Amino acid sequence: MNAPLTESVPDIAIDLAAIRAAHARIAPHIRRTPVLSNESLDAEAEATLFFKCENLQQIGAFKARGACNAVLSLSDAQAVRGVVTHSSGNHGAALAWAAKRRGIPAWIVMPANAAAVKQDAVRRFGGTIRFCEPTVIARERTCAAVQAETGATLVHPYNDWQVIAGQGTAALELLAEVPQLDAVVAPVGGGGLLSGTAIVAKAIKPSIRVYGAEPAGADDAAQSLRVGHIVPQTQPRTIADGLRSSLGDKTFVVISAQVEGIGTVSEEGIVRAMRLTLEKLKVLVEPSAAVPLAALLERQIALSGLRVGVILSGGNVDLEHLPWLQHAGQG
Amino acid sequence: MNAPLTESVPDIAIDLAAIRAAHARIAPHIRRTPVLSNESLDAEAEATLFFKCENLQQIGAFKARGACNAVLSLSDAQAVRGVVTHSSGNHGAALAWAAKRRGIPAWIVMPANAAAVKQDAVRRFGGTIRFCEPTVIARERTCAAVQAETGATLVHPYNDWQVIAGQGTAALELLAEVPQLDAVVAPVGGGGLLSGTAIVAKAIKPSIRVYGAEPAGADDAAQSLRVGHIVPQTQPRTIADGLRSSLGDKTFVVISAQVEGIGTVSEEGIVRAMRLTLEKLKVLVEPSAAVPLAALLERQIALSGLRVGVILSGGNVDLEHLPWLQHAGQG
Repeated sequence: MNAPLTESVPDIAIDLAAIRAAHARIAPHIRRTPVLSNESLDAEAEATLFFKCENLQQIGAFKARGACNAVLSLSDAQAVRGVVTHSSGNHGAALAWAAKRRGIPAWIVMPANAAAVKQDAVRRFGGTIRFCEPTVIARERTCAAVQAETGATLVHPYNDWQVIAGQGTAALELLAEVPQLDAVVAPVGGGGLLSGTAIVAKAIKPSIRVYGAEPAGADDAAQSLRVGHIVPQTQPRTIADGLRSSLGDKTFVVISAQVEGIGTVSEEGIVRAMRLTLEKLKVLVEPSAAVPLAALLERQIALSGLRVGVILSGGNVDLEHLPWLQHAGQG
Repeated sequence: MNAPLTESVPDIAIDLAAIRAAHARIAPHIRRTPVLSNESLDAEAEATLFFKCENLQQIGAFKARGACNAVLSLSDAQAVRGVVTHSSGNHGAALAWAAKRRGIPAWIVMPANAAAVKQDAVRRFGGTIRFCEPTVIARERTCAAVQAETGATLVHPYNDWQVIAGQGTAALELLAEVPQLDAVVAPVGGGGLLSGTAIVAKAIKPSIRVYGAEPAGADDAAQSLRVGHIVPQTQPRTIADGLRSSLGDKTFVVISAQVEGIGTVSEEGIVRAMRLTLEKLKVLVEPSAAVPLAALLERQIALSGLRVGVILSGGNVDLEHLPWLQHAGQG
């Protein structure tokens, strides 16, 4: 999902007040997810960790927050024409779910080869799937065609201020529950969650440190920060399917200004962190959601001795193919 | 763990006030676990379910509550001599954990063939393991020997009023959070959790219905209620290793007086409910903890259209041997 490299740099259009307003708007629909902790994980990380369980959120991921805020922010005239997005992941299900809560139509564009389980998630919430070829151009053309046909509003998975504001509400709740945090770590794919997290955390507590975490095999955010412009993700090689996107111009501007750094982790580290989270915290996380813990355990982010919030971004996993069991015969 | 068939029937020695006192005593040590819900599970059960997540409790099971209350209820003179129990399961780890919180010794008697992971859990909390032959007589003799040697107090896994009061605090929290419940279902092995649940629920809300759930392959509680005296569990055949015990005289008297009925479930139903809980709620439960949901899904407990609390009793599982994957080659 490559964002265009624009000449002009966008202003950061949302602030703490906007994120508080988003929270008030979506609170009747989303879950206030619990914060968990575990002494064994603390010992191994040499830090005190507070896990915000967005894997227990509606649709199994934080994406419910941003999609819900975007849908509820539409005027009645816009809303009646529905919403459209391209996503073969959690954002597609989240947008279908949010649209259903408002009683408006949602079109989700996905490649014809998208996994059946992803298609089912969209249909379960009443979304209409439009298939396309598995290329960026086909995806964008199909979205544009749906918009032209229906007048639906495009809700981008991350490069959208209302989506970013919605994603920031997870950290808003986390800091309300654990105000003594010294740092917070979120996974970064397109950057919506990390951007919303940074805006809210720095506004509430200017001394807090905010970090992103991504796979070494999809390290475009780390590269982008290093060179000072968006480096698109062209050949992602990672099990963390939620983190294969490129940054957008909006998320790049927030992350450049407000994030201390990005830790990059090994694939083995992701699988191990995913398993440890299930074994110790007793909650299921998808590979993307295990990346921040992996970054702490691999010491790619140095937060020894500190109180660290970790956002567990989602828990949508195929239970027949848990990655730490892939050595066993599958059939 | 066969309780002696006594001639005299014990009085129920604890009430709501005792359980509230237990809660005040243990609250600084235990976690106030979250209550989760899921629309897909509600649809399949044709009821509105509220899952109290004791799998997210300290040591991964509700047993932390009862053990903590028993340990904190000892006088200083008793406490200094320590505690002892026989358990190869969660109660052993819970008692070691609770003793460590008070800074007193704990001896845990277990058979020499107990799983390494169970031994590790006890040692991690500083408990001392005493091995014995894998028979009831050897276990009780070894406990008695430790008591004679050390003056330690025996803390029975379930047939103990302080333990029962502690286990009741889970339902106390559940009813505080979801007062509109029509019914509550808990698994029944020795009956400590179900007894504490029944006492607290009926006292707070006399109209509430309380049910137990157990495997058809270890249905001694259902049989005991049917015939009116304790039928010992002699040959349990179930994956639910926490539910293989017999009732004790104290738990039998409570369950006889206060529980509406016991649902019995198939082994396939247990595995399926365990998997569904992970897939839909995104939390890990051990087989014993999946039994109440299995009873609702197999319609062994008829609560259609009602608001039902379900206690997820624990989440200690070997992640290399998830039962729904046992058809796949294991190396």
